[in-house]
Amino acid sequence: MKIVDIEKIKGTDREVQGEGWTSYRMLLKKDGMGFSFHETRIPPGAELHLWYKNHLEAVYCVEGDGSIEDLATGEVHQIHDGILYALDKHDRHILRGGNKEMRLICSFNPPVTGRETHDEDGSYILVED
Amino acid sequence: MKIVDIEKIKGTDREVQGEGWTSYRMLLKKDGMGFSFHETRIPPGAELHLWYKNHLEAVYCVEGDGSIEDLATGEVHQIHDGILYALDKHDRHILRGGNKEMRLICSFNPPVTGRETHDEDGSYILVED
Repeated sequence: MKIVDIEKIKGTDREVQGEGWTSYRMLLKKDGMGFSFHETRIPPGAELHLWYKNHLEAVYCVEGDGSIEDLATGEVHQIHDGILYALDKHDRHILRGGNKEMRLICSFNPPVTGRETHDEDGSYILVED
Repeated sequence: MKIVDIEKIKGTDREVQGEGWTSYRMLLKKDGMGFSFHETRIPPGAELHLWYKNHLEAVYCVEGDGSIEDLATGEVHQIHDGILYALDKHDRHILRGGNKEMRLICSFNPPVTGRETHDEDGSYILVED
């Protein structure tokens, strides 16, 4: 059994920041669960163009608000507490912050190693251990 | 892209209840993510004896409080907002509700099909589609 306290991750290499997002990697590939598990915070007004070509991702909002634009269809879905989106087709999308910081709980398959960065497409490059 | 609203799951077969728990299966095996993704509520005073012999599970608390007892070591870990536990060794455990209903976000590997029930060991039996 592993216990992970987000307060103890802050300031370590499991806290990763970019423009418009901060992510806490609670579980990574090396934790051996077969998925990774993150908490990500999106501030009001952020706009992220993302395309996880190599990963499937589920994202569940538990606080705050924002929206996601599906670039395949043009549809915009509002996000708030209790809304999950699943990128089951490696969907290209734009994630936008709303009026209050969004708190998102995310799971990735395959698991993120922690050494990925977003490339020019907004994708995570696959990293082998 | 799939959008899942917990309010639309309530009262359907994706809402599952037992003594001391209610679970909302946001993503199941058939959703094709390679993991399942649930929100589970544990009321104050609940005591659940669990042993997922067939699954790895990560559980992240985002509201409320409780505790988990690791039956391999006897250790008791307090659970509150920001604490994750990972059952990376199919750990036998007792999950206890605290003073305020716990809101837990859970991911299972392999994904739950939605047709499992807890057996006499507190395990989910593997179900093939």
